[in-house]
Amino acid sequence: MFKAKIFLPSLFLFAFFFSITSALWPIPQKWTKGDDTLVVYPSIPIKLNPNTAKILSVKSQQAFTSAKNRLQKFLAQERYVSPNVKFNISSKAKQLDHVIINVSTDQDFEINIDESYTLEISEETLVAEISAKTVYGALHGLTTFSQLVYYDNDYLKHEKHQRLYLPFAPHKIVDAPAFEYRGLMLDTARNYYPIEDILRTLDIMSWNKFNVFHWHIVDATSWPVVTKAYPKLSEKGAYDPKTMIYTKQDISIVDEYAKMRGIHVVPEFDMPGHTQAIASGYPEIVSCANEQPRWDLYAAEPPSGQLNPAIPETYTFLENIIPELTSYFSEKYYHAGGDEVNMECWNQDASIKYYLGNNSGSSLNTLIAKFIDKTHELVRKSKKIPIAWQETVVEYNLTLGKDTLIQVWKDDVTSKQVAKKGYKMIMGTSDYWYLDCGHGAWIGNSVNGTSWCDPFKTWQKIYSYNPTSGLTEEEAKLVIGGEVLLWSEQSDPTNLERMLWPRSSAAAEVLWSGTNNRNVVEALPRLHDWRFRMVKRGVQAEPLQPLWCARNGGCDLPQS
Amino acid sequence: MFKAKIFLPSLFLFAFFFSITSALWPIPQKWTKGDDTLVVYPSIPIKLNPNTAKILSVKSQQAFTSAKNRLQKFLAQERYVSPNVKFNISSKAKQLDHVIINVSTDQDFEINIDESYTLEISEETLVAEISAKTVYGALHGLTTFSQLVYYDNDYLKHEKHQRLYLPFAPHKIVDAPAFEYRGLMLDTARNYYPIEDILRTLDIMSWNKFNVFHWHIVDATSWPVVTKAYPKLSEKGAYDPKTMIYTKQDISIVDEYAKMRGIHVVPEFDMPGHTQAIASGYPEIVSCANEQPRWDLYAAEPPSGQLNPAIPETYTFLENIIPELTSYFSEKYYHAGGDEVNMECWNQDASIKYYLGNNSGSSLNTLIAKFIDKTHELVRKSKKIPIAWQETVVEYNLTLGKDTLIQVWKDDVTSKQVAKKGYKMIMGTSDYWYLDCGHGAWIGNSVNGTSWCDPFKTWQKIYSYNPTSGLTEEEAKLVIGGEVLLWSEQSDPTNLERMLWPRSSAAAEVLWSGTNNRNVVEALPRLHDWRFRMVKRGVQAEPLQPLWCARNGGCDLPQS
Repeated sequence: MFKAKIFLPSLFLFAFFFSITSALWPIPQKWTKGDDTLVVYPSIPIKLNPNTAKILSVKSQQAFTSAKNRLQKFLAQERYVSPNVKFNISSKAKQLDHVIINVSTDQDFEINIDESYTLEISEETLVAEISAKTVYGALHGLTTFSQLVYYDNDYLKHEKHQRLYLPFAPHKIVDAPAFEYRGLMLDTARNYYPIEDILRTLDIMSWNKFNVFHWHIVDATSWPVVTKAYPKLSEKGAYDPKTMIYTKQDISIVDEYAKMRGIHVVPEFDMPGHTQAIASGYPEIVSCANEQPRWDLYAAEPPSGQLNPAIPETYTFLENIIPELTSYFSEKYYHAGGDEVNMECWNQDASIKYYLGNNSGSSLNTLIAKFIDKTHELVRKSKKIPIAWQETVVEYNLTLGKDTLIQVWKDDVTSKQVAKKGYKMIMGTSDYWYLDCGHGAWIGNSVNGTSWCDPFKTWQKIYSYNPTSGLTEEEAKLVIGGEVLLWSEQSDPTNLERMLWPRSSAAAEVLWSGTNNRNVVEALPRLHDWRFRMVKRGVQAEPLQPLWCARNGGCDLPQS
Repeated sequence: MFKAKIFLPSLFLFAFFFSITSALWPIPQKWTKGDDTLVVYPSIPIKLNPNTAKILSVKSQQAFTSAKNRLQKFLAQERYVSPNVKFNISSKAKQLDHVIINVSTDQDFEINIDESYTLEISEETLVAEISAKTVYGALHGLTTFSQLVYYDNDYLKHEKHQRLYLPFAPHKIVDAPAFEYRGLMLDTARNYYPIEDILRTLDIMSWNKFNVFHWHIVDATSWPVVTKAYPKLSEKGAYDPKTMIYTKQDISIVDEYAKMRGIHVVPEFDMPGHTQAIASGYPEIVSCANEQPRWDLYAAEPPSGQLNPAIPETYTFLENIIPELTSYFSEKYYHAGGDEVNMECWNQDASIKYYLGNNSGSSLNTLIAKFIDKTHELVRKSKKIPIAWQETVVEYNLTLGKDTLIQVWKDDVTSKQVAKKGYKMIMGTSDYWYLDCGHGAWIGNSVNGTSWCDPFKTWQKIYSYNPTSGLTEEEAKLVIGGEVLLWSEQSDPTNLERMLWPRSSAAAEVLWSGTNNRNVVEALPRLHDWRFRMVKRGVQAEPLQPLWCARNGGCDLPQS
C-alpha cells in the first residue's frame, strides 16, 4: 500500500557511524595517533625515572606521588564508557606494561613555570612515557593519560572485569599551555562554601588543566577569614563565627591541596569598596555602611560600605591586616581588589568632608590613590605582587607599579586601554566569561528583571572568547591569561558544580590550547565525552544536550 | 578628628529587627496566630481520631500512616534553624501534647477531591488538631504542621538537645487550594532520570502541596517505557534497554509513592509528533524519521519523526499500545500529546501522498483529526479522560470531546480561544512557567544563541503569573489549574533539583493560595525560610540571594 521511506537506511547508517576518535580536553597542541587498542590494567606500574627522582625536591616528589595516586584511583574506579568514543577490541590486544615519567629540572612553583610535557604511548615497547621540564608539566601528562583510558564499550554484553582500554594507539602528544595564567574565580563571600567544596573544585580544575584558583574570599556581605589582628572581622562579619569561616589552617589546607594539583591560590581581599562586612566588627573605619533603603546611591549592590580613606585608623588597619593576610597564602600574587568604588559613599561621609576641607589639593581621587598606593606598598613589602581590578587604571586613572597585574572584566576596549598603559593583564570579560549571568534578577522585588550581564553564557559563547581580541600582536603579549568567574549572589554549595561545569571546561581549552582555530562543531563531541567522564568522576556537570545528540550528533543548526 | 556616622545605629537596629513571624509556604487561606512558643518533642504522638479510623479505607489509612511517618522523621532529624524566623524561648514554655487528626469522609483519590483542612494549635489544651473532609486534606495539614516547627535558633549557645519549638502559638489555620490541578511536568525522554530522582521530586512536590506529576515520559529522543505489545520500543528506543528504562513495576512504584503523598501521576505519551524514538524499533509507522541535516524542515527540534496517520499499521499500533499504556497508571487523566505537528514531515512522505491522492476529501487536516480522534477514542475506551496540547483545538482546529482537558503553553490569547470553545484547561505559559528557559542555545553550533523562551524565569516572574489572566470570571472557571514545566534538553539528574527548586515553589503558592494579592516583597522572606528548610531536608534548592539578604532584608530595589 505504501512505499518504504527511502531516507531511512542512510540515516540509520549516519547514526551508527557517528563516533569520534579524539576526545582529549583541553586538546593538546600536537597529537598523532593510530588505530590500535591496548589493554590497561588498573594495577599498571606508574614509575618515576630514577634519575628524575634524584633531582626532585621533596615538594616536587610529593606532587608526583599525589598525582600518581589520583591516576591509580581513576584506573581502579572510573570504568568510564563514552557516549561517542567507540573503538574495536581485539582478543589479541596487547597490554600496556607501565607508565614512566621523566622530569629534567626542579623548579619553584610559580605561575610562569614551564608546564610543557610530551606523552608517547608505543604499541611496540608497550610503554607510556611522559617527559617534562618540571613536575608540574608531568602532572599534566598524567592528567592527559587519564583521559585516554576507557572501559569496555560493550560492557553490557560481557562479564564485569578489571580491564581498561586505551584506543587509538600509538599516541604521540607534544603539549604546552597557550597562556601561563589559567584561572577560575569563586566568590565565597556572598554565599559561603565549606572547604570541601573548594577542594572538590580544585580537583576538577586540575583535570581541566587550570592552574589558578582566584579566591574572592571576602566581600560586602561577609568576611569569613579568621585573623589574629582583627578577630571581630570573622566574629561579627562571618555568616557564622564558628561554622562559616576560613581559618589559617583551612587556608593552608586549600593552598597545599591546590599545589599538589599544580594550582596556585590567588587570594583577593577586595578594598576599599565591597567592605561592609568589616563594619560589623569595626564600624569606625567604614563609610556609608549598609545605607538603606537607598543602597543604590552608594554601591552597585547591597549592602553599601567602603573603607574610609581619610582617617589614620584605616591605614593602621591596612598596616596590620595585610601582612597577616599575605602570610596565609604561598602564592606570590595577591589580589588587592579596587573595583567599583562609589564616590557618593565617600562624598556624604562627614570625616571625609572634613579631611577634604582641611587638606588643600586633596580630592576623592587623591584619596583613592593614597589608599591603593598604601595597599600595594604593603603587598610588596610582604614580597607579593599586587593584582588590581581594571578600574584602578582605566577609571580612577591611577599610576600603579609596573609589576601590577590588571584584571579586566569589561571588554576589549578596556584591554586596549590597559595595554597602552603597559600593564600585564588577565582577561575575563562579563560578556563571555561570567558564569553567573543569565540567572535573572536576584534583587528581591524585581519581577521582570534579568541579570545585568544577561544572557546566560553558554559553553559555545565561552568557547568563542579570545582573551587577546582587539589587541595588536605586541599588546597581546601583555595578556598572560584569563579567568572564568562565578559571583555568588545566586550560587552556593547547592548549585556550585553545575554552575561551573562543564562550561568552565570551555574556557580551560581556550586558555590551554589557544585561540587559534577554535570551532564549536569540532569541540562539541569532545566536550560531550569530557562532560560524561566528569560526571562519572562524581561531578554534577550539567548536560549540554539530550543524550541522543551526544551519541548521534545531528543536533547542529542547519546552515541553510 | 571626625564625627561618627549618624546613620549607623539606626541601620544596625534595622538589621537586628529584620525577622518574620510568618513562614508557611504556600501560605494558608486564613491564618491567625499568637506569640507563644511551645516545645515539641520528636516523640510527640500523632494520632488518628478513632472515629476517623473506622471510616477510612485501607488505602486512606495507608496514606495517613505514610504521612505520619514522614512527619515523625522530620521531627526526629530536621533540626531546622531559619535565617529569618526568630522567636523567644521561655524557660516556662509549655509542651505540645499530641497531634490529632479527624477525617470526616472516605473518598476516591481524584484530582477534584476535597483537599481542605483546618489546623488548630491551642496553647491551652496543648493539642494540635487537624480536621479535613478527606485524608488528602489531612495530609496537607500534616505538611503545614511540619513547617511550623523549628530548632532552637540560639542552638550555638546551648548543648545539643532534642527539643523543637513551635512559635507564634496559638494558631488557627483554615485552608484549601485555589486550584484543583497543581502540577509539575518533567520530561524524562530528552534525558533520562532514574526512578529515585522521580520519587525524590514527588516528595518535594508534596511539601509544596502540588498534587499532579505530569510525566512527559517519552519523546523523539527516547522511549524508555517497556511494553509487552511492542518490546522494541524500549529495546531499541530507550537510551539503554537495561538501565535506562521504566518498567511496569517502576511505574507502579512511582504511582503508589505519589498517591501516598496526595499526588496524581498523569502520564503523557505524546503523539503523533515527537515520536522519532518509535522509529528505532518500528520504522514502518514513522514519517520523516531523523531527517538530517535539515531536521529543521520537519520538526521543531532534532530528531524529526511523526507517526504516519495514513497507514493502517499506525492505527493497529494505537489500538494495541494505548490500552496497555493506560493500564499502567491509576490516574484518570491520560495526556495524549498532540503538540507541534509538522505538516512538511507528512507532506514529503510517499505513503501519505499516496493516501491523499486516493482518498478524495482527505487532507493533512483530516488525517490529523483522524489520528487524534482515534487516540482519544481509545483513551476513553480505557476509561480515561484525554488531555491534549493547545494546538489540537487552536491550531489544527479540531473539535474534541467536551471532557478533554486542554493544556495551554502559550499565552492568554490562547487561553481565551480555548475558553471560547468551552474546554476546561490547565495553564503553564512558556513566558512564565517554563523552567528550562534562559539556559542558552543547546543546539551545538549556535554560538550567540539564547533559548527560544529567554530569559530565565526567576521565582519572582513565576510568582507574578496568573493562570486566569485575560479571562472573564466565567471563562476563568474553565481553568482548573496549571503546571510548571521542565523540558530536559539541558537537564538530567545532575541539575534536576536546582532547576526545579525553589522556583517551582513560587508556582505552588500561586496554585494553592490563589492569585489575589500575591506580592513578591511579602513572599521573599517566607520563600527564603522555605528554601532553607528544603535545603535542610537535603534538597539542592538553589539560593535566591546572598545569605546576608535572607537574614537582613534590604536587598530590594529602591523605588525611587
